[in-house]
Amino acid sequence: MPPALDPNATLADLGEFGLVSALKRRFPSGEHVLLGPGDDAAMVAVPDGRVLVSTDLLVDTRHFRRDWASAVDIGHKAAAQNLSDINAMGGRVTALTVGLAAPPELPVTWALGLADGIAAEATAVGASVVGGDVTRADAVMIAITVLGACEGEPVLRSGARPGDVVAICGRQGWAAAGLAVLTRGFRSPRVLVEAHRRPEPPYDAGPEAAALGATAMIDLSDGLLGDVGHIAEDSGVVIDIESSRFEVAEPLHAVGAALGADPMKFLLTGGDDYALVATFSEGTVLPQQWRPIGRVIARAQGHADTTAGAGAPYGEPEASGGGAVPGEPLVTVDGSAYDGPSGHQHFR
Amino acid sequence: MPPALDPNATLADLGEFGLVSALKRRFPSGEHVLLGPGDDAAMVAVPDGRVLVSTDLLVDTRHFRRDWASAVDIGHKAAAQNLSDINAMGGRVTALTVGLAAPPELPVTWALGLADGIAAEATAVGASVVGGDVTRADAVMIAITVLGACEGEPVLRSGARPGDVVAICGRQGWAAAGLAVLTRGFRSPRVLVEAHRRPEPPYDAGPEAAALGATAMIDLSDGLLGDVGHIAEDSGVVIDIESSRFEVAEPLHAVGAALGADPMKFLLTGGDDYALVATFSEGTVLPQQWRPIGRVIARAQGHADTTAGAGAPYGEPEASGGGAVPGEPLVTVDGSAYDGPSGHQHFR
Repeated sequence: MPPALDPNATLADLGEFGLVSALKRRFPSGEHVLLGPGDDAAMVAVPDGRVLVSTDLLVDTRHFRRDWASAVDIGHKAAAQNLSDINAMGGRVTALTVGLAAPPELPVTWALGLADGIAAEATAVGASVVGGDVTRADAVMIAITVLGACEGEPVLRSGARPGDVVAICGRQGWAAAGLAVLTRGFRSPRVLVEAHRRPEPPYDAGPEAAALGATAMIDLSDGLLGDVGHIAEDSGVVIDIESSRFEVAEPLHAVGAALGADPMKFLLTGGDDYALVATFSEGTVLPQQWRPIGRVIARAQGHADTTAGAGAPYGEPEASGGGAVPGEPLVTVDGSAYDGPSGHQHFR
Repeated sequence: MPPALDPNATLADLGEFGLVSALKRRFPSGEHVLLGPGDDAAMVAVPDGRVLVSTDLLVDTRHFRRDWASAVDIGHKAAAQNLSDINAMGGRVTALTVGLAAPPELPVTWALGLADGIAAEATAVGASVVGGDVTRADAVMIAITVLGACEGEPVLRSGARPGDVVAICGRQGWAAAGLAVLTRGFRSPRVLVEAHRRPEPPYDAGPEAAALGATAMIDLSDGLLGDVGHIAEDSGVVIDIESSRFEVAEPLHAVGAALGADPMKFLLTGGDDYALVATFSEGTVLPQQWRPIGRVIARAQGHADTTAGAGAPYGEPEASGGGAVPGEPLVTVDGSAYDGPSGHQHFR
């Protein structure tokens, strides 16, 4: 039994090798792990000979705030947003690597809490943390890479066809409403604050949609209109969202009323819930958790095909701001362009 | 043809989607890529059903300095240190993901130069950049994950046995000597400065050593004594390095003389060259590029086995500073403990 850890210990007290050693113990190896953490690389089983891979970076005060959420919550969320990327391909995550850059004065308990959160979120879907890196930096940053498998073909963003039904699975707008609450210094409604702190992506829904023959799919990380815009863009179509299809949940109504905001704004543009949006051929019988919210429409004549990225040389068209033809939005709400920003874009 | 890029453009001018779009064009997809960048995840072929994976973080001013090396050089080096991790397992890299965190005022030309360097280093070994992430941060940070394949079993750190020969392949000490030169404000000997800016890991030597039956292997990123200490630690042995085995290259002599430093210090403790050290059964006929530099020795009676990490609860024993029995070094030079720091450790 290791002795109890000094609760005030910092990464500087522990040192790199001590931290790595303590972290490794947090990460049990599941069935796919042929070689776990501790060598120059890990090794993961890929029975079907194809591996899905995705990477995300999370930066302190931009993607998480240590005063608004616990280290464990931040770990859950960091893992969730990466697991969600594989979910959006119709796959399941088998393994993760975790990079942590942090200042030496970071409490060890915070780093271990983060690891516990990541490990718990991963373990819940049968995935294992197999390796990573720690390094010193002025700000806390987390880099996660996920490896995953899918049974059939992965579901891309580019397969939506005119006439397809657009459907959503999972909560949407809750995390953004929780963030709005936290930003104004409140801590309730608790259910929304918790949704922001610890999203609950519908992990089984991705493989389910793939099995149902989904023609395109994406997870909602930056906002519904913006993310659906990626499907419209890559599929060469227009997508119309029907606002009457949404049931606005009671807590969203409450926050909207309290903050003087339209709750539909959370639904249409809020990020960080990691719901899935997929398109299905008309007539596909959808399980109850998939709720139709719109339609795929052919682009108007003369609406240039921008799928090859030919339109804008160093800047892709913004999702709901128009395609290659100005004024011709790729995503509409009830047939019209949405009047407002559709999602988040870094650097701007 | 995209119009020429304004040479003064920053990431803020380009925006996240514009940057991603420009970066994607830098990364051609090779034979292992089933689905390249642009969707929620990429997909890579893994014909033998097992994938090696490793992640590294690089932080501005700690792992690279933008005033000491070009963006292209930094890209080459960032890729090289990750490719080297797979080399050290006896494998070859098939795919990489790249995360870039950067402030909005970073010149676009720098980000694209970095991408070009990474792509060139990867392409040279047949690997492809298949995805990544960009995000805003106060400092530049690069997170790279590599996926790789090995033909036989991977070569671990834990297989060295008493009697084995310790051999090295690749330049060692050159990058550290180059760094010493740069730190003092000089720019020559150029061959050393270049070795620091753009290491040349012996990429074919890893698979070669595996085919020769190497019992253990590691790449030299933090320093020879420290890194060899990981083999000693994980294999439950002692390793003796014989200093007479090293030929001290002329530029190292020159820098040692100019700076009043023992050039052996660069060889024994310098990092960032990404040479390989492997152990082989006695009698293995080694190709010329593998030079014997020492011996694997059994631990003394009473020298506790620390391979399970039982010795130090939150801190692993330092490589040449002793094992679980104080005063009993795991790595010796000519039979004695080395008098000096053996390598780099973060946070301390």
